[in-house]
Amino acid sequence: MISIEEALARILSYVDVLPAEEKPLLEALGQVLDEDISATFDIPPLDNTAMDGYAVRAADTTGATGASPITLRVIGEVAAGYEYEGEVERGTAVRIMTGAPIPAGADSIVPFEETDEPFDHAPSGTGRLTATAVKVLKEARPGANIRRAAEDITAGQMVVPKGTVLRASEIGVIASLGRAAVRVIPRPVVAVLSTGDELLEPGQERSGARIFDANAHSVGSLVERYGGMPRLLGIAKDTVADLTAKIHKGWGADILVTSAGVSRGDYDVVKDVLASEGQVDFWTVAMKPGKPLAFGCFYPEGDEGRRVPHIGLPGNPVSSMVAFELFGRPAMMKMMGKRDWRRPMVRAIAEDEITNRDDPRVFLARCFVTERDGKFYASLTGSQGSGILTSMMRANALTLIPAEVDVVEPGEEIDVIMLDWTRGEEWGSYLTSD
Amino acid sequence: MISIEEALARILSYVDVLPAEEKPLLEALGQVLDEDISATFDIPPLDNTAMDGYAVRAADTTGATGASPITLRVIGEVAAGYEYEGEVERGTAVRIMTGAPIPAGADSIVPFEETDEPFDHAPSGTGRLTATAVKVLKEARPGANIRRAAEDITAGQMVVPKGTVLRASEIGVIASLGRAAVRVIPRPVVAVLSTGDELLEPGQERSGARIFDANAHSVGSLVERYGGMPRLLGIAKDTVADLTAKIHKGWGADILVTSAGVSRGDYDVVKDVLASEGQVDFWTVAMKPGKPLAFGCFYPEGDEGRRVPHIGLPGNPVSSMVAFELFGRPAMMKMMGKRDWRRPMVRAIAEDEITNRDDPRVFLARCFVTERDGKFYASLTGSQGSGILTSMMRANALTLIPAEVDVVEPGEEIDVIMLDWTRGEEWGSYLTSD
Repeated sequence: MISIEEALARILSYVDVLPAEEKPLLEALGQVLDEDISATFDIPPLDNTAMDGYAVRAADTTGATGASPITLRVIGEVAAGYEYEGEVERGTAVRIMTGAPIPAGADSIVPFEETDEPFDHAPSGTGRLTATAVKVLKEARPGANIRRAAEDITAGQMVVPKGTVLRASEIGVIASLGRAAVRVIPRPVVAVLSTGDELLEPGQERSGARIFDANAHSVGSLVERYGGMPRLLGIAKDTVADLTAKIHKGWGADILVTSAGVSRGDYDVVKDVLASEGQVDFWTVAMKPGKPLAFGCFYPEGDEGRRVPHIGLPGNPVSSMVAFELFGRPAMMKMMGKRDWRRPMVRAIAEDEITNRDDPRVFLARCFVTERDGKFYASLTGSQGSGILTSMMRANALTLIPAEVDVVEPGEEIDVIMLDWTRGEEWGSYLTSD
Repeated sequence: MISIEEALARILSYVDVLPAEEKPLLEALGQVLDEDISATFDIPPLDNTAMDGYAVRAADTTGATGASPITLRVIGEVAAGYEYEGEVERGTAVRIMTGAPIPAGADSIVPFEETDEPFDHAPSGTGRLTATAVKVLKEARPGANIRRAAEDITAGQMVVPKGTVLRASEIGVIASLGRAAVRVIPRPVVAVLSTGDELLEPGQERSGARIFDANAHSVGSLVERYGGMPRLLGIAKDTVADLTAKIHKGWGADILVTSAGVSRGDYDVVKDVLASEGQVDFWTVAMKPGKPLAFGCFYPEGDEGRRVPHIGLPGNPVSSMVAFELFGRPAMMKMMGKRDWRRPMVRAIAEDEITNRDDPRVFLARCFVTERDGKFYASLTGSQGSGILTSMMRANALTLIPAEVDVVEPGEEIDVIMLDWTRGEEWGSYLTSD
């Protein structure tokens, strides 16, 4: 048996960051950028107005008030996306719409509110200038309501560095730089195969001793949740022939994940196929659940240098999920180039007795963690048999009881690995739905 | 101007939960279940073994030790998915593989480790019984290593209730109940349209006063992040004709989101098209950024009773993102049947002066929140101009400065709405990548 840490280190040593690809911008959300994105022009490109109103020479408005307005001659208008051809000379103004470049000669924008132009002066949508003069009701300050060219981004500036995980705001910024596609590290395709003569596909007719396969769906869902693309390969029988055929179908994927067939039983052929068709690395880890775990690589023929890592999860539904969380998820994160795939861990007060006697394995018991008065509490979510998937459904965390601890008494502090925790459950909230 | 709370209440009053659909199980991840899922059979269906070993009568092993083992005659074997036809009679044993049903007569499982069968006794994969007798090295306890029928789920039990947001473990449990598809509330299709003569699509050639459209991509990314399906409709010119044509394309979606064209400028035709083709509800909200906001509904002809809500976001890139976070996200959550779409909010200590003078609007300044020694601190992420999208990129939260507060001094406590916060940044972590 090897430790969890050692098993993970070995798995990661065989897993590579996927080669980057050019992707349409919207498909890059959540992925890791594989290039430095720099600006080739200023944003905004030109000085422009932050308000609808009139572009004026501030000096022309000196002394203007509501009681004694100053009248300017309106010589034209300009909207966003266009440039005013002429110049604002003394005593004149150009009607201007938000975002439009500041006309030559003007140094200030007087918003409609500070003129005699009523709110709904022009029928909107016409864009036709109807006023020939405008009364300014307040002195304009030079530079007022002007957004300066390059106030956000300067040409040449590096804006989004390589290695950034792209969120909506980065995607927006990259779009504003004119890029329709970016180089990112793609999502891994994860082939998922269940094995076992006893398994039925959900939807099939059930018979006596046979059970429906849960693992393909639970593991496939975890793949999706962590940003990969699950490719379900179905169920393989416990024969070398069927398993070999189905495993070959997974060689097109970036990683293959199987469940069951990794114990020492006669029918546990996964490790044998892995050994004959590829290379096995190890197959037991000092953890509970999840001890039997096969790991190895296939080297598809005719595909020089290509390596398909294979994680052989245990067959019990809880064990396969827990082992995927501990080993499959980090492998996916590494493939996606994500550097920070830490799993949050807290110290929590045990609310139940947790026994781990006579078992030299780390005990990852399913538990539910709550926070009360700044302290975390962990209660077990029922029977810890590795077939009891409902206790996984009720859990949001796993305990981390060291192998050498026989028993944890209620009230003792333990380490807990968080699985599903939405920060904010213990905070206030804004605009609730209730 | 109306308040944020009122604007949201009005929007939600026009938004309906989408009609539920039958979806393949894996596509239901993250969605809200719209039926009660009950079990039609026990899980596990039969008593079965938790270990590879021998099914025995415990009484037959009384007194067995390594020094004086008890020999049993091996009468057959059984693997998971099969049932042993005969009966374990006195002095006999059936070789049994994990998951296989307990043969009649047997009341205990002796694992291989407690027999003389070596680890790699049979060539695995053959499934052929080679031993005719087995030595038991330790007394078997009645019931040992037996998983009882129905120990996880009992026939008739309600397992996953309507309204549950389906995670990987629920998907696994539902698969184990034999269901290949479930009724869930689907993801909304969100049509996203940018408007403005000044806009270019990313990838187009740039000219003087024109700018690349950021909003379709940033808002489209938020749609995706919150579980919807963005359908980008491109850019509409600021004319009633072009805008009307493009808006019609959005009527097939569950909700239409446009950006820009909602101020009072001459070219702000979105609100006019909404007024003539549908019904406008309101168009200014007491918030900064994001004051001009149009909301209304279209009632497509020939589609009795169908209503397409339309959120007209402001055009500035920060304003459109902030307004989508505050109004678009809750609308999506309601459509998806998610009852808890709270946004976490904390009290944080301001690290900068924040001024909100002469503006009767709530100030949602972009800030970055950190936690140190159990306290939260918020620092502004630079210029708060609503065109400065890079300051959104650096932010993980928005301040919530009430309209009546003119200035917040450094050190004062403020409310902060969290946008991107991964709980655990301030915790310990398990198995880091470093």
